[in-house]
Order: sequence, then C-alpha cells, then structure tokens
Amino acid sequence: MTDYSRVTPAFLRELEGIVGPKGISVLGEDLVKHSKDESLEPPHTPEVIVYPLSTSEISSIMKLASIHNIPVTPQGSRTGLSGGAHPVYGGIALSLERMTKILEIDEGNLMAVVEPGVLIMDLHAETEKRGLLYPPDPGQESGSLGGNISTNAGGVKGMKYGVTRDFVQELEVVLPSGEVLTIGGRHVKNSTGYELIDLFVGSEGTLGVVSKATLRLVPKPKNTAIIYVPFNSARAAAKTVSEIVSRKVVPYALEYVPRHAILTAERFLERTLPDHNHLAYLIVGVDGNSENEIDRQLDIVGEVCIEMGGADAYLADTPSQQQQLWEARKCLFEAYKAFYEIDEVDACVPRSRFPDYVEGAEKISERLGILISTIGHAGDGNAHSIIAREQVENRDAWLKKLDVAIEELIELSLGLGGTISGEHGVGYAKKKYLVRKVGDTQLSLMKVIKRGFDPQNILNPGKVIDV
Amino acid sequence: MTDYSRVTPAFLRELEGIVGPKGISVLGEDLVKHSKDESLEPPHTPEVIVYPLSTSEISSIMKLASIHNIPVTPQGSRTGLSGGAHPVYGGIALSLERMTKILEIDEGNLMAVVEPGVLIMDLHAETEKRGLLYPPDPGQESGSLGGNISTNAGGVKGMKYGVTRDFVQELEVVLPSGEVLTIGGRHVKNSTGYELIDLFVGSEGTLGVVSKATLRLVPKPKNTAIIYVPFNSARAAAKTVSEIVSRKVVPYALEYVPRHAILTAERFLERTLPDHNHLAYLIVGVDGNSENEIDRQLDIVGEVCIEMGGADAYLADTPSQQQQLWEARKCLFEAYKAFYEIDEVDACVPRSRFPDYVEGAEKISERLGILISTIGHAGDGNAHSIIAREQVENRDAWLKKLDVAIEELIELSLGLGGTISGEHGVGYAKKKYLVRKVGDTQLSLMKVIKRGFDPQNILNPGKVIDV
Repeated sequence: MTDYSRVTPAFLRELEGIVGPKGISVLGEDLVKHSKDESLEPPHTPEVIVYPLSTSEISSIMKLASIHNIPVTPQGSRTGLSGGAHPVYGGIALSLERMTKILEIDEGNLMAVVEPGVLIMDLHAETEKRGLLYPPDPGQESGSLGGNISTNAGGVKGMKYGVTRDFVQELEVVLPSGEVLTIGGRHVKNSTGYELIDLFVGSEGTLGVVSKATLRLVPKPKNTAIIYVPFNSARAAAKTVSEIVSRKVVPYALEYVPRHAILTAERFLERTLPDHNHLAYLIVGVDGNSENEIDRQLDIVGEVCIEMGGADAYLADTPSQQQQLWEARKCLFEAYKAFYEIDEVDACVPRSRFPDYVEGAEKISERLGILISTIGHAGDGNAHSIIAREQVENRDAWLKKLDVAIEELIELSLGLGGTISGEHGVGYAKKKYLVRKVGDTQLSLMKVIKRGFDPQNILNPGKVIDV
Repeated sequence: MTDYSRVTPAFLRELEGIVGPKGISVLGEDLVKHSKDESLEPPHTPEVIVYPLSTSEISSIMKLASIHNIPVTPQGSRTGLSGGAHPVYGGIALSLERMTKILEIDEGNLMAVVEPGVLIMDLHAETEKRGLLYPPDPGQESGSLGGNISTNAGGVKGMKYGVTRDFVQELEVVLPSGEVLTIGGRHVKNSTGYELIDLFVGSEGTLGVVSKATLRLVPKPKNTAIIYVPFNSARAAAKTVSEIVSRKVVPYALEYVPRHAILTAERFLERTLPDHNHLAYLIVGVDGNSENEIDRQLDIVGEVCIEMGGADAYLADTPSQQQQLWEARKCLFEAYKAFYEIDEVDACVPRSRFPDYVEGAEKISERLGILISTIGHAGDGNAHSIIAREQVENRDAWLKKLDVAIEELIELSLGLGGTISGEHGVGYAKKKYLVRKVGDTQLSLMKVIKRGFDPQNILNPGKVIDV
C-alpha cells in the first residue's frame, strides 16, 4: 500500500488554492530543510511543503491528498530523534509551524488550548506568568506541542507529574480522509466509549493530524530547590534513585548524569559546574508550596544520598542557581552534537533496574569500543544513551558499531523489563525493533487500527508500523 | 453478529475440564445472582457461570467459547451501574471473583501487581500498611480492580491524583481468541507503538479480559484534613469549586452534597452530621506531608468558602472525624438504595460548568416532578444525579419519567461541554446515547477497533457499541 501518485503541477495549483501562495513551497532549500528531523536517518525529500493556518486548511489538504493518493507527512519543529517527520515516500510535508497560537488559558478549569505549532517553551512562558505549570518538560524546548503529543514526550518532570498523555484533555484531529474529529473535552473524567485520545497521543502522526489540543495545567509550586550530588560510583548513584523513592519522597526531577556528560556540558557552556571530579552525578529537584515542604524533602534526599555514598551535596536554592543547573542538564544533547556526531537510544526500564541498565550500557560501550554516554531521567528509569563519534574516528566503521550498539542497548532494556523508547517514539529509525517489545499479536492489533483509521495508508506512511 | 450457539451439556463438560467441578455452576440461584449488576436494567441470565483461578484457565475458556461461538460476559463484583456485566445474550458469565490475590507490592518501583478480582478496599488496606496509596477511590469500595479498570473508575480523589487509567502500568489481557497479551511494563514512560493499555482500560470488558494488572502507587501523604462547609445556596456552593482551584489549591477531594443527601445519609447511618440545616455542602479534603502544608491549604479554602457565602466551616482533623465524614459521603448510594428505588446519571462537565449542571438538574427535577439528588465529585465536574422513586410513587409512571430524566440530564451535560459518563461506563444502559457524545465517525472508529479485536463478537456483546 505504498503505490502513491506523484505531485503534479495541477495538484500544486489545487494546494495553492487551499493555502494561498504563501502557504506552499517547492523551493530547493525548503525541501531540504523539511527532508529530515534531528536523527541520523538519511533525509527524504518531500515534493512540496504546505504550511496551513487552520484546521479547515488541514482538512482540505487531507481531502485532496486522499483523492489523489499522495502521502502526507505531518511536521512540527522537526526536532524528533526517530525520523518520524521524514517524508519517506515524498509527497506532501505538512508543516504545522505556522499554527502557533495559544488560543486560551482557562484558569477555572486549569487548561490551555493550543494550536499544534506552539513551542513547548512558549507555553511554559505563558502559563508561568499566571502561576500555572504545564509539567511535560522535554529537553528540547523548541519542540512543538503537536510533536510532543505525537511522541508522548516526557522530559525531566515525568517522575512526579507524568508525561504528555496525562495532560491531553481534548484533541481536535484531522483524519486522513479530511474529516475533523473533536475527542474528549474539558471534563476531566470520561468513561464514554473507547479512549481514542490516548490512541492518537503517541501515534506519531500516523492516525490523524493534531490540529488543536486542550492541555491540563497544574498550579505552579511556589518553592523549588535542587541538589547536585557527586558519587564515586555510577552504580551507587543509580541505585540511590530507588532508595529515595522508597523513602516516600517524589522529587519532580531525578536526573543521572555521568562525568563525561558533565565535562561535555562545561565545554559547551564554557563555564564550570559545582563539581566535575566524580564519576557520576544526581541532580535532584524538589518542589512544594512552602520552605518547610522543600526542607523536608531535601533532608531525606540528602540523607539517602550520603548513606548511598554521595561525596558531597551542592544546594541550588536561588532561581539563578537552579536555572544554571537545568541549563547544564538540558544542553547535553546540543552539547554532544556540537562536538560529536551522535545517535541515541532512549530506553526506559523499571526504576529499580536503572543501575543495571547503566552498567550494561557501559559494558556495551567497552566491548564495542564506542563512546556511549548514558544520561537519565533516572526517576522514570528513562535512559538517554548518547552514542557519539569523535571527529577523528572513521565514520563507516563507527556506523557499523553504532548499529550493533543500538541493537544491544535495546535488547538490554527489553531484558530488564523495559521498553524501546520512553519518549522519542519509534518513527522510522526504531520501527524494525517494535515487534520485539510488543510481539506479533499486539503488532497485528496495531495494524488493524492503522488500516481502520487510514485505509489508504497516506498519513505518515512508513512510520511505527508497516501495513 | 449475535447468532450465537447455545451452551450444551457437552460444552459444560469441556468447561468443567478446564476449571474443575468447583469452578463452574449452573445452579438457579447462582444464575440469578450473575444475571445483573446494581443498575436498574432488567436481568439477563447466563447459561453457565465459570470461576477461573488463573490466566491460563481464562485463556482456555475463551478458546473454547471462540470455537463454539458462545458469548462470554466478564464479571467482577457486579457493582456496576450501567449493566456492563449483564450477560445480555446468555452464554458464559466469566466471574473473576476468585482471582483475588495481591501478587506483589514493589516498593522500589512503587507498583502493585493484582489479580482482577482483588477488591479496591483490599488493595487500599494493603498499600496503606506500607505507607503507600493507590489513589483511585470510587464510592463502591467492594468493586473489583478488574471492574475498575474496565470502566476507568475514578472516585473522590480524581481531582488531585487522576483516575484508574492514570495508574495502570502493565496489563495482562486475554483476547477473545484466548491469546494472552502483556502490554506495557514497569517502565513508567513509553513511546513504543500505539497505546493499547489505554484502549483496554475503559473498554468495559469488550476487547479483552483483564487477567492481571500492575498499578502505580504513590507515597501516602502523612497529613490530611477535611472541612465541611454549609451554604445557603446550591449555586454558591457549586461555584466555590472553581474559585478554590483558581487560587492554586488542589484539594485531594472536593465534594458537593445537597441537603437532601445529607439528610438521607443521617437517616441511613442513624447519626447526625455537623450540620444539616443548609441547602448545600462542600466537603473539601486536603493532604500533604506537614501540618504547615495542611494549614496553608485550609486557610485558602476556608477564606474562599467564606467569601463565596459559606455559612460556617467544620474542621475534621482527627482520623476518626475524617473517617466519619467520608463514611457519610460514601454511603450515599447505599443510603438512597435503602429508602428508594434509584437510577443514576454520572455526567461529567468542565469544572467551571458544574454550577450550571447542578441548577439544570434541579430544573429538570422540578419540571418532571421527579426526585433528583445531584451529588458531585465537584472538583472533577463529575455529578452523580441520583434519580429516586419513593415507595408510594407509582412505578410505571416513575419509570416513564425516569427515561425522560436520564435523557435530559445527558443532554444537559453534553450541552455544557460534558460527557455521558464520568466513571460508570456506557455498558448496556447508556449505549444508545454514546453517539451523541462521540458522533458517527468516532463511533465507526470504535467499531473498527471492536471488530478487529473481537471478530466473532463473543466478548461482552451488546455493550458499549453494537457491531
């Protein structure tokens, strides 16, 4: 079902009739820009890019594509890491980057209504002004909310607050046929038929195009603090995570960072962090609505860290100290990209198995002779193993080792009861591995869904599953 | 697709071969017992009841039923209110009531592994012993977790903690074919293919039989308190709910109770509550890990209640005072059942529209001349409108008015941007209304899913949607 028609001049005129001359491009430089995301997957050039400004334009584009059997690849900010936005069969790149309105902040119901192209950092800024918080907080703050919904993005606050899926209340979705659905609502409970919202969330743009979303917010906690704890042993640092949780404290963030990443952040930011001489670090963020609440959590976290072998504990309690630590944590992907060619596995294992994953990844790195730096949303058991090539390394040899490393890291995760991707998605890059997590029967149920929702297979074909 | 075979003596012998003589019954009294849940729907008698003890028994039963084309209706504690457990086409009642083991409490990952027949009150007791909390807390504590998962039950703590769906991490499900799937895992993030767990949760036993579930827990807050606030106006009480939230406080419970319900609780419990002379009441529960945290929340809640016209505020801070108030709130369904014949609509509207729902329901009650008592998980906008017949009323005349009242309450909710059922499910009773919430296209997508997952339509047929 991938025998698509090609885009013709007549078809381009029809598209232009929908989006106007400013809403369409076939310029070479635009086609190149829209041929890939931030993964290492080879680019796939679309035949045309359209930039709709409304749901009805998206609907008309999908209807037209459906009539002419042209594949459509939705794109947000193209910051994905699994090739999910690559137009692998050409056709239309449907860029939502101009639908950037925050339509409403509903303070009585604690909800925000956004267009899909709104960047996560812009929603964060807007909600914070009003003392509200949209908790999902992926490292890549220039990602779009449509993209975040498509991959069920998580980020550093998943441990306490959950992931994108937990915050999507209502979705407006354009089906491959062009039909527009509104699913859910501002009612926070629902037991009325099958849960289609959660099916669209995380479906990586293969079942429908998100054209509007209503997202749940929470009151922003008044107080926050971070402690930065160096350890002399990677295992001790990683083990501390479960230990903190078993003492009944739930930090909003519990990040594991190895020394190599700390040094890379320092090099990238051109400043030093409070310590860079130890093997591994935990960055623990706590929040609450009083100093008392913060102190209670810091006391317990500090105590556990020392018991588990923490060498010191640096407290960041002013906003700027905290911001500096988060900047260091969040820059890591960009920092590695600045100095290396990189790819990544974002395995997620049960929190208690996180130390085993970290050790296993180190062993793979040593055995294959390839640099793997495993940074983790450790509170979620979500490990980002960055696999990096130094400029001096032979690229072909590295690519071969890379394939083996990805394969072995995924097997490591599955063997520990984990999953293939915690938040980046399967997309194009990890598609071949999906069956190893879900098995043949679940895969065939997913195919039933894809075929039922997209009988022509024109919406983001070649991603997640092949039908 | 409802042309089923009948259960034969040979088929019964095959079933007995799977579950043993103690695992099967065709006794008249058992058939009657398993013919209905707690809704007013007329009973539907199964031809046989089986009581499996393991996943493999469930699997063998489903395989056999599939071969012989016999319908299977999964049942938990049969405390449902939508007829979801009625064996409307006869066949097998698959009672999970003997699968009552709490298999594991995993403190490092904060998860519990349960069989489907475990009662919610038993899981609460077991987790609380360890300082942990399974937040979903539906009024009916003798409901089973399998049933809770099937309807995506919520209860009084939804406002702060979410509903059942938010806590299901891993599901073992037996498909209609007998195949056993394990979906998800103890990894708390997942972006690996379509989210099938959330499809099974809330599917009311129509897509698969839940045979085991891994549920997320949270640390139990150390401190709790409740305030009980009488109001002279229903609207003022209901409006206070959004106002509390807009002051950035999220109580764990925010319940609205009208005077009629307070008096009914007093009559049922044979004791008085702190006040019963006002028109409406809010019961506001707050939790935290220090007295300071509790006081901060109580201060704000108290202040808002007084500003909004609260006549007084009774503080319950000892465990027994709090328990007494919750007992009064939670007994209401049973209390009404003791004195009236009742049915119920559990609409859920956006929190900010809850006052409009309460007023609208009162108008329907007055216009139709039928007793409707609307009690609400107001923090969630989830209203339980109990429609009650006094013993002196003519039953046939009441039943006619009941149908109109249900219809009008559902339309009221939909008109306010709400849904048909917040937590009870569509089941058999509300099936005809489903299309009004979701529309034809979503309904047809749901049918695609049902047909794909259950091609013979043997699993709980006649519920949620007809295919």
